[in-house]
Order: sequence, then C-alpha cells, then structure tokens
Amino acid sequence: MTEIETFENPAIGRKYEINHINNEFTSVCPITGLPDFAKVHLRYIPDKICIELKSLKYYYFDYRDKGIFYEEITNKILDDLKDVCDPLEMEITTEWTVRGGIHSIIKAKHVKGE
Amino acid sequence: MTEIETFENPAIGRKYEINHINNEFTSVCPITGLPDFAKVHLRYIPDKICIELKSLKYYYFDYRDKGIFYEEITNKILDDLKDVCDPLEMEITTEWTVRGGIHSIIKAKHVKGE
Amino acid sequence: MTEIETFENPAIGRKYEINHINNEFTSVCPITGLPDFAKVHLRYIPDKICIELKSLKYYYFDYRDKGIFYEEITNKILDDLKDVCDPLEMEITTEWTVRGGIHSIIKAKHVKGE
Amino acid sequence: MTEIETFENPAIGRKYEINHINNEFTSVCPITGLPDFAKVHLRYIPDKICIELKSLKYYYFDYRDKGIFYEEITNKILDDLKDVCDPLEMEITTEWTVRGGIHSIIKAKHVKGE
Amino acid sequence: MTEIETFENPAIGRKYEINHINNEFTSVCPITGLPDFAKVHLRYIPDKICIELKSLKYYYFDYRDKGIFYEEITNKILDDLKDVCDPLEMEITTEWTVRGGIHSIIKAKHVKGE
Amino acid sequence: MTEIETFENPAIGRKYEINHINNEFTSVCPITGLPDFAKVHLRYIPDKICIELKSLKYYYFDYRDKGIFYEEITNKILDDLKDVCDPLEMEITTEWTVRGGIHSIIKAKHVKGE
Amino acid sequence: MTEIETFENPAIGRKYEINHINNEFTSVCPITGLPDFAKVHLRYIPDKICIELKSLKYYYFDYRDKGIFYEEITNKILDDLKDVCDPLEMEITTEWTVRGGIHSIIKAKHVKGE
Amino acid sequence: MTEIETFENPAIGRKYEINHINNEFTSVCPITGLPDFAKVHLRYIPDKICIELKSLKYYYFDYRDKGIFYEEITNKILDDLKDVCDPLEMEITTEWTVRGGIHSIIKAKHVKGE
Amino acid sequence: MTEIETFENPAIGRKYEINHINNEFTSVCPITGLPDFAKVHLRYIPDKICIELKSLKYYYFDYRDKGIFYEEITNKILDDLKDVCDPLEMEITTEWTVRGGIHSIIKAKHVKGE
Amino acid sequence: MTEIETFENPAIGRKYEINHINNEFTSVCPITGLPDFAKVHLRYIPDKICIELKSLKYYYFDYRDKGIFYEEITNKILDDLKDVCDPLEMEITTEWTVRGGIHSIIKAKHVKGE
Repeated sequence: MTEIETFENPAIGRKYEINHINNEFTSVCPITGLPDFAKVHLRYIPDKICIELKSLKYYYFDYRDKGIFYEEITNKILDDLKDVCDPLEMEITTEWTVRGGIHSIIKAKHVKGE
Repeated sequence: MTEIETFENPAIGRKYEINHINNEFTSVCPITGLPDFAKVHLRYIPDKICIELKSLKYYYFDYRDKGIFYEEITNKILDDLKDVCDPLEMEITTEWTVRGGIHSIIKAKHVKGE
Repeated sequence: MTEIETFENPAIGRKYEINHINNEFTSVCPITGLPDFAKVHLRYIPDKICIELKSLKYYYFDYRDKGIFYEEITNKILDDLKDVCDPLEMEITTEWTVRGGIHSIIKAKHVKGE
Repeated sequence: MTEIETFENPAIGRKYEINHINNEFTSVCPITGLPDFAKVHLRYIPDKICIELKSLKYYYFDYRDKGIFYEEITNKILDDLKDVCDPLEMEITTEWTVRGGIHSIIKAKHVKGE
Repeated sequence: MTEIETFENPAIGRKYEINHINNEFTSVCPITGLPDFAKVHLRYIPDKICIELKSLKYYYFDYRDKGIFYEEITNKILDDLKDVCDPLEMEITTEWTVRGGIHSIIKAKHVKGE
Repeated sequence: MTEIETFENPAIGRKYEINHINNEFTSVCPITGLPDFAKVHLRYIPDKICIELKSLKYYYFDYRDKGIFYEEITNKILDDLKDVCDPLEMEITTEWTVRGGIHSIIKAKHVKGE
Repeated sequence: MTEIETFENPAIGRKYEINHINNEFTSVCPITGLPDFAKVHLRYIPDKICIELKSLKYYYFDYRDKGIFYEEITNKILDDLKDVCDPLEMEITTEWTVRGGIHSIIKAKHVKGE
Repeated sequence: MTEIETFENPAIGRKYEINHINNEFTSVCPITGLPDFAKVHLRYIPDKICIELKSLKYYYFDYRDKGIFYEEITNKILDDLKDVCDPLEMEITTEWTVRGGIHSIIKAKHVKGE
Repeated sequence: MTEIETFENPAIGRKYEINHINNEFTSVCPITGLPDFAKVHLRYIPDKICIELKSLKYYYFDYRDKGIFYEEITNKILDDLKDVCDPLEMEITTEWTVRGGIHSIIKAKHVKGE
Repeated sequence: MTEIETFENPAIGRKYEINHINNEFTSVCPITGLPDFAKVHLRYIPDKICIELKSLKYYYFDYRDKGIFYEEITNKILDDLKDVCDPLEMEITTEWTVRGGIHSIIKAKHVKGE
C-alpha cells in the first residue's frame, strides 16, 4: 500500500486536535464485489508526528479496489494511521451510503497507553 | 511579517471573550504550490493587552504567499498572537476548503500558566 | 463494457418519463489519474424499449477505472444509453465534486429526430 | 387482484382534481427478489366515476409479493385505475428508494380521448 | 344544517379575493365509521354578498358526525357556499390527513356563468 | 379618524412602487366584541402624492377599538388611502390570525381610471 | 455631497448587469430625528461609464446625518447615480427596518430613453 | 451622554431576566473614521432598579458619531448600565458586521459582588 | 380586572406541565401611549388547581388599554396567576415586537416554597 | 498569463451546457491593494472546443496578484474564455464578498454571432 508520509509535529508539547474528513472514500464489498461509498472522519491529537495530507489521500485511494468489510476497514485505517504517527489519541468514524435500505456508521478509537 | 499592533485592554481585571472570525484566509500548499483557503476563528480572553483588528487583518494577509502546512499555520498564529498580547486564554480554529475530497479542521488552545 | 440490458416498454405509445439518479458515480481524471466523483441524473421518455436498472448500475461501474473527461463521460453516457433504447427524449446531467475549488455541472440532451 | 370499488362522481360535469398519495407502497424486484419501496402519487379528474379509497389501499397491498419492474408497475397502476373509472385525466408518479446508489422516479399520464 | 349567514358585500363592483382557511375540519368515514381530518381552503370573489365567518364555522361543525366521502364533501361545500352567496368565482380545496398510508387532496372550482 | 398626512411625490412622472407592511394591526370583531389581529400590506404606485408613514401608523391605530368585518376593513383602508393620494395603483392585503380554527386572507386592488 | 467617481466601462457595447447591495445604509427620519436603517440594492446595466465602488460607499455615508423620507432617498439615489453614469437601465430597491410595527420597501427604476 | 433613566424594579426580591436586543447599533471606527454596525444584546437580572427602554435607545444613539474600539464599547456599555442600575448580573454581547473579511463578537459579563 | 376562573387539577399528585402561549397580547406604552405587542408564554406545573383557559383569555384582554412597562406586566401576570392557583412552579416569558430597533424578552419564574 | 488549454468537443453538433463554478477566486483591489474574494460561475455551450479544467484553474490563479476592478475581471474572463474556445453561448457571474458593507454581483454574457 501507499506509504503514509509524515512530518514533525510543529507544536510538540501542545495538545491540539486535527480533523481530516474524507467525503470521497470508496472500497469494494467482499461479498458482492460491488462498490461501497463512505465518509471517513479522522480525528487525532498528535504527539511527535503529523500525517501529511496528500499521502493520506493516496492511502485512501488504495482501498478503491479492495474487497473488505466496513468493520475491518474502520479498524485497519485506525491501526495503520496510529502506527505511522503514534498519536496521543485517534478516532476513525466511517459513515456508509445506504445498501438494501440500511445506512451504517462505525466508530473506533485509540488512546496512547490504554 | 506585519507587526501586530495592540492597545491596552480597556477593562483590565474583567474576564471577557473576544472573537475575530476571518472568512478570507488564504495561504499556499508547501507541496503543490497551489493556494489553500480557510476560515480562521480566533477566540481569546485578554489580560492586559488587546489585538488591534486592522493590523490583525494585515497579519493574516502575510500568509497569502507563504507555503506552509495547516498544522503549522494554526500553531504559528496561536504562538504569534499569544506572544504579542499574553492572554489568559486563546484558541485558534482553522477550517480548510476541500482538497482531494478531504475537508480539514485544526484546533489549538493556549491557557496562561499551563 | 457491460452490455446494458433492456426490456420491452410495458406501455408503448404512452409518453411517460423515467428518472434514474445515481449518487455514487466515480471515474478517473485522465490528466492526474486521481478519482472523480459525480451524481449522474438520467431522465428519458422511452419509445419501444426501457433500460434495465441493474445492468445500468453495472454499466456505471465500468467507469470506475476509466480515465475520461467530464464532458466526454456525459456525452458518452447519453450516446450509449440512447443507442441501446432509442428513446423519444433523453437527458443526462452530471454534477461533480469539487476539484481545485471548482464544482462542475454538465447537461446534455437528445431528442429523437432532431 | 383486489377489485377496485368505485362510486358515482358526486359532481358530474364539474372538472375537479382528486389526489391520493400513498407513502407506503412496496413490491419485489423481479431480478433480485428483494423488496422495493415507493411513494405512489395518483392524481385524476373524474368523469362519471370515483375510486373508493379503501379498496384502492387494498389494491396497492396486492403488489407486496409481486416481482415487477418500476416502469411496469407505474403503467399498470395507471391502466388499472383508468380502466375502472374512465377519468378525464389521470397521472401516476412513483418515487423509489435508493437501490445500489440509484434513486428512480417514473411519471405516466393518461388523457381521455388522446 | 346550520344556515350560513351572509352580509352585503361592502365593496360591490370591486373584484377582490376572500380566503377562509379552516385547519380544523372533521367528518366521519362512511365505510369505517372512523373520524377524518382535513384542512379546508375556501377562496372566492364575492359579487353582491359575503359569507359571515362565524356561521361558516358552525356550518363546518355540522360535518362532525356525517359519514361522507372526501369527493362529496368537497363538492357539497362548494355547492352550498356558492348557492348562498352567488360569487363571481369560488374554489374549495380539501387536504386530508393520512389514512392507511394515503394522503388525499381534492380541488373543485366554480365560475359564475360557466 | 386620524387625518392621513401626505407629501408631494418627490419623483412625479416615474412609476415606482411603495410597500408599507404593518405587522401590528388590531381591531374588534363586530359580533363577539373580541380583538382581531392582522398583518396589513399596503402596496401602491403614487401619482402626485405620497402617504406619510407616521400618520399612516396613527390611522391604523384608530381601528384598535372599532367593531368591523374583515372584508369591510380591507375595502375601507383601500378607499381611505386611495382617496387621500389618488394613486396610479393601490393594493391592500389583510392576513388575519386564526379564529375558531379559520385563518382568513382578503385582497383588494384599485387601478386609477378602471 | 461626496462626488461619485466613475471609470470607463471596460466592456462598452456588451449589455451586462452590475449589482451593489449595501446592507449598512442609515439616514435620519425628517419627522422624529431618529435614525433609520435600510438595505439598498443598486442594479444597473452600464452604457459608457461604471460607478466606482469606494466612492459609492462614501456617497452612501453622506446620508448618515440627513433627515429625508424613504421615497425621496430612493428616488434621489436613483437620480444621482443615473446622472453620473447615464446607464442603459438602473433600479434602486430600499428595504427599511421596522418602525412602529411597519416594514417598508420602495422600488424605483430608470430606463434610458423612456 | 444621554442620561439613562430608570424605574424601581416592580418585583424586588425575584430573580428574573430582562433582555433588550438592539439590531441597529452603529458607531465609528477610531482608526479609519468609517461607520461600524453591530447587534448589541443586553441581558440582566435586576436588583432594585430597572433600565427604562426609551432612554436606553437614546443612550445607544449617542455612539453614532463616537470613534471607539469594539472592546471598549462593549465594556463601556456594561459599565454604564451596571453603574446606573446595580444589577445582580449583567451581560453584554456585541456582534459586528464584517470588516476586511473579519466578523467580530465580544462578550462581557458582570456579577454583583464578584 | 377579569376574575381568572379555575378548576380542580384532575391529576393531583402527578407533576405535569401545562403551557398556554398567547400570540396576541397587546398593551399600551406608559411613556408614548402607543400600543405594544407581545407573545406571552405561560408554563406551569399545577398543584391542586388549574387555570381555566377562556377566563385567562379575558384576563389578557384587560391589558389592551393599560399603560404599563414590560417588566411590570411580566411580573404582574406571574403574581396574578400564581396567586389564583398556587402552582408548584410557574414561569412567564414575554417577547415584545421591535421598538426603535430593540427587541425585548423578559422571563420570570416562581417556585413554590422558595 | 497561463495559456488555457482546450480539447476537441467530444460531441460536436449537440447543444449541451457546461458549468464550472469556482468558489476560491481571489484578486487584488486596484485602489486599496487589499485582496478581494469571489465565486466565479462559468456557464457555456461549446461549439468545436472545450476548456480543459486544470488549466482553467491555473488561469484563475493568475488573478491572485492582479489589481483589477470587478467589472473588468468579469468581462476579461468572458473575453479570454470565449476567445479560446469560440462557444455558442457563454456567461460569467462573479459574486464578491462584502467590502465596506457592500456585496457585489456582476453578470456578463456572450452569444455567438450577436
């Protein structure tokens, strides 16, 4: 997969919040092979390292042809992104478009040291 | 950069809140060289000194040609403005227009003595 | 590409209107190679033949990996769909998500015999 | 199917408009066997005969287990209802909930003597 | 039924429009015996005579226990009110609350001399 | 009643439109003696003379204790105001608050020379 | 009063529309001496000359202490602005805040050669 | 400046809240000399004395020609009004129209005995 | 003044809330003699006694010709109504139409035993 | 300035409509030297040639440091874009953020052969 680039947090020591809200996420349903669409909300408090936005965009593009469940995507994004920047806190929320009349929302959170 | 002018707080000793919300902030992406646009919300509780609005406007104009990350801008504005007026509390929120389908919001806060 | 399936118009001789509005269209920018996202509105008055909805969905999926301009997509969808069912009237409107601060809308219409 | 009951138009000779809007229509997709949901709008100008509302409701219930295309339903309702009451004008609009990201709307109209 | 009282049009010769919109109309379904609720919109252009509002209110109350179809009510109100004041134009619209998932609207109009 | 003051139209010969919308009109029901409330919209195209706004306000106050029908008020205001300024066109719309579940709207118009 | 500055129309011969909407107009009531507030909408199609925006702003400021009726202001602005730039068409709409429960809107239009 | 008139609180001993929201405040920028516009929200809990509304209106008019900063106005209004009526609590919020793309909101509060 | 009639609370012992919202309150300004208009919101939790709605309406009518301040009206209504029914809680909110650009809201509350 | 790239209209002979709405336009005021911000709406019906979106974006960037009036920008964009693609119709609408309390909108249109 695309390597997520990072840069040094320009304000180490200050607890501040970064939100990147992707309205154009798409992946593939592992059962039907049909495309899924989601809004992916990343919220985190950086420690030493920040996530570079352009490589984040390319990282999300990698899911375009992946067959993967909603729950797995949500947790994998959280794992990948926390591994790359080791934040104080990180939360991923995925909101999926309607399938068979059902609208799904998944939320996962990581707190450093918990 | 533009020197931010200040004036003596007309109500020293009273804890009150000042908000200046700039809907017309623009800077340049340090990676692509393309312009970025944001809404910058400054909220602070002054101590001895207030920030003069016209020089604040000119201070924001200085970013028009600067190539700088969202996270760094947010923290730099917070640092510059708190240094110039040493407030009891100050908070900067930057909301950026969509880039590659992604909408970003950064929030940073300073509390005197913390 | 996916063959668009059709079925005989169940009301030949009656001028009536069919709308299929796809909120989940995606293709690829031919210049940057990055994904594009659109809402595609198909409106038509059938003559002898109707477009089957499931194969229409698969037809749209075929654009997922195609590098193609907004204008060409809009006209190609119109041409493909009118060729397959020879309608009395057909109109395609594509509304694209923001790219570089720009939001695009393309509208094309075909009238039989014009 | 349920026989649609009628009653004599209480104002023969006056051109007036009757609307019955059913928000709870459901049928079955003839291809996938999955349920479909629609809002069905009936608008007509009666001639000698009006449609009785309770039997209309039961008539709509008959579609609950039928596998039938959107276009055919729309035209069949129009045909069944116009046959039973021979109105001066009648129009059926069906609005279907999202399937595979696609939202469909079908409109058909009958005018006596055209 | 209540006699609808009238008074002389205070501006005979001027074509002006009077609207009385009753949000609290109720009658009884002739088939199920259950209460129906409607909004009844009366719009008219008086000739020599106006309808007195209080007696109109009592006239509407008379339908409270009547078992009568939507179409008949709409036309009967139009007939009763036009007979009592012989207006240049009169229009009745009845909007009924949802019954069995169906929402009904009936519109009828009278023009003097047509 | 209060005399409505006027002033010379500052732009005689130009057809332009003046609107004065009074949200605080009140009078008394001639049958029940209870207060009525209305929004009174005056729209006119002046000829030689304009209506002065402060005296208009006092003119409206005069109805505070008058027992008078909606239709008569609407036409009386139109007659009083057109008599005082002889406009090219004038229109009065009165919208009354709900009484016995009924909401009334009356519209009357005068055109010079008709 | 402030002289309204102008500049040569950069597109003489093309009929295009310019709108300047001032939300911060204030003048003084000639009867009570109290301040009035309005939104002033200027719409025009230039001929040879355009109105410069900054001097327009100062022109509006000149009314801050003037005691003048709504109708006169509206027509005077129209006359002053049309005299200075001789447009093909010009329209002024003034919308005034509530006074004594009354909300006023005045519209005046000039067409060259009429 | 205008003397703010007061009257005895008609309900001494009851803690109740009074709001006066002025949508038509205007002053002058001390740097540019140009007019500023604000909405001024006064909220207070009276002790022995209430502020009379008409003199409050005139008090606000006195700022029409004053060159004064947003922060100073907000605190001066709070000081003047609390001095005149010694309330249990008082809060002033001023919301200013956009200047140079920046929208400002200032909030100050006084609590008796703090 | 009109005597407010009451009736026994039909659910003594249950704490439930009653709201009567009067959109048609009018009184007279004690300084200018001009009419004032308000929305009066009565909210209470009854103890043993409830307020009868028709006499409440007549009680409000009694203010139509009274010259009285906003603050006094609000507290007087609260006092009169609490005296007549001795509720567990009662709150009066009066919202007044704009006067001189100022919109006023007064809130007063009574709690039994405080 | 940036050369606007074009590509051959993929549907020559069909009259269809292309809209590109730029929410992030900025230029400089020629009088004050301060930045201006606008939404620029381009609508056109192509003849033989279409405008390439990425170079359009760069074309708009060229105005970032230009000192130029609203009216001139609007007409220059129209002229530049029509010259490069010779469309059947083209319309430019620019909506500018508030300056000195004034909000401006300029609309210009070109029709081939007029």
